[in-house]
Amino acid sequence: MRDLSNDHALLSLNTATVRKQWRLDRIIDECARRGIHAISPWRDQVADVGLETVARLLRTTGVGLSGYCRGGFYPAANTAGLTAALEDNRRAVDEARALDAPCLVLVVGSLPGALQGVPAYTDITRARGEVRDGIAATLEYARTVGMPLAIEPLHPMQAAERACINTLEQALDLCDELDPERSGMLGVAVDVYHVWWDPKLHAQIRRAGAKRLLAYHVCDWLAPTRDLLNDRGMMGDGVIELKTIRREMESAGYAGLCEVEIFSEDWWSRPGEEVLDTCIQRHRSVV
Amino acid sequence: MRDLSNDHALLSLNTATVRKQWRLDRIIDECARRGIHAISPWRDQVADVGLETVARLLRTTGVGLSGYCRGGFYPAANTAGLTAALEDNRRAVDEARALDAPCLVLVVGSLPGALQGVPAYTDITRARGEVRDGIAATLEYARTVGMPLAIEPLHPMQAAERACINTLEQALDLCDELDPERSGMLGVAVDVYHVWWDPKLHAQIRRAGAKRLLAYHVCDWLAPTRDLLNDRGMMGDGVIELKTIRREMESAGYAGLCEVEIFSEDWWSRPGEEVLDTCIQRHRSVV
Repeated sequence: MRDLSNDHALLSLNTATVRKQWRLDRIIDECARRGIHAISPWRDQVADVGLETVARLLRTTGVGLSGYCRGGFYPAANTAGLTAALEDNRRAVDEARALDAPCLVLVVGSLPGALQGVPAYTDITRARGEVRDGIAATLEYARTVGMPLAIEPLHPMQAAERACINTLEQALDLCDELDPERSGMLGVAVDVYHVWWDPKLHAQIRRAGAKRLLAYHVCDWLAPTRDLLNDRGMMGDGVIELKTIRREMESAGYAGLCEVEIFSEDWWSRPGEEVLDTCIQRHRSVV
Repeated sequence: MRDLSNDHALLSLNTATVRKQWRLDRIIDECARRGIHAISPWRDQVADVGLETVARLLRTTGVGLSGYCRGGFYPAANTAGLTAALEDNRRAVDEARALDAPCLVLVVGSLPGALQGVPAYTDITRARGEVRDGIAATLEYARTVGMPLAIEPLHPMQAAERACINTLEQALDLCDELDPERSGMLGVAVDVYHVWWDPKLHAQIRRAGAKRLLAYHVCDWLAPTRDLLNDRGMMGDGVIELKTIRREMESAGYAGLCEVEIFSEDWWSRPGEEVLDTCIQRHRSVV
């Protein structure tokens, strides 16, 4: 297993972690100053600053991407909605390409309208079919521009609103169906927050292998957890056995970065400098 | 599929549903008055009224049990804790026997101390081993008194504190290991709240079959859900496809009751009469 204790060369920052403190231009600058050489930005943060400006900032600071967040949200109430989702995913692929991301992360969506509290339908099997078809279409386009897609299985507690792909096994089944040749163009983003509980986690990481393991996200699971979305913990503050999972990832061939992604009202309320410094320290000690 | 629209003969009430409104003696009386012929009581509610008194009330009112809640919580920080858990589970089996329950429901436990916010360890694999050994020991005793054990897989969002068995597949794997002869003494309690999201749900229900399907619990998943424990919905108010799941259960051979179990600050704040009347109405219309 790689030794992270001497530096933070393998640390990436998912920029949602400090989204309430800073705009993306400031985040890139603060990362560069601390020797954090990679980020994973969100589309709305990029749009706020401007795609061209962000691309230029990345070049001048030498900060790269570990992923781009996000495509997905395929299911829709009707054909117009499905078509609009596909078009939006093409734009996401293009943006990822423009920023030289190694992959576009897919949060696939689930019951349309559930996020707004008004689900247009409740048949999760239908949603899963729409997700399958949507990823197939996006993959066809993504292959033409060479942008790998990373399906992120989300925790089952987010199955109604955000993603109807909820286990690594399910994500890999879909990868095998849509990319049986293991081309490297379709894989998974493994976020410990979503999968730590899974009794099949280690076996599925091994099944995935280097070709499918496109991203690795870390944070922690607090006990107790007080909110279904925005109560993630800083690495080391919860119950996830981070080193055990990273060992499995690396044994399976993963050689990429460890991306810190923390949605937390607690950490959003602290100074951004403190958050980044803590990420660096925990990356060296407990990740 | 059985037709529930004409009466509520197949309705059972998990008594946690009105635990904040009434003591258990009152709950039994209110159920009997409404023609609800089965309940699933919790040990603390029974203890409050007294085991003998509860047994007598059940006999005089003609109310039976669909299950007894609960055994489990096996993992512990040390040997003394493990031993104490086994003794407590023997008592739970005896109480279930005294009340003529068809099964003892097991909420198996997970990281010891996590429920109190101070986990004694964080190795969920170790917890799963302690759960396996604990169920094996309880099963040995339960066989001698003829009390079936129903493992209840809990939602992954409760994996740290309450149960490290989190999918139906995982529960059935354990059943196959500890009871390969499918004796009828070890099976599962399928609660839609915990398993509705699972892409393998239907396949695993079929795998379980009549011998392993010992209980069926209903409520609903609200979108959005505001709390990880006490924001369950009344049947029909959420996104779970209840009739689809019941159809799978019955196709697999389940012929038992539909037990309503709703942990909800909302429903606990309403008059108990309203809650029971709503359960009956929804049982006939959407379960």
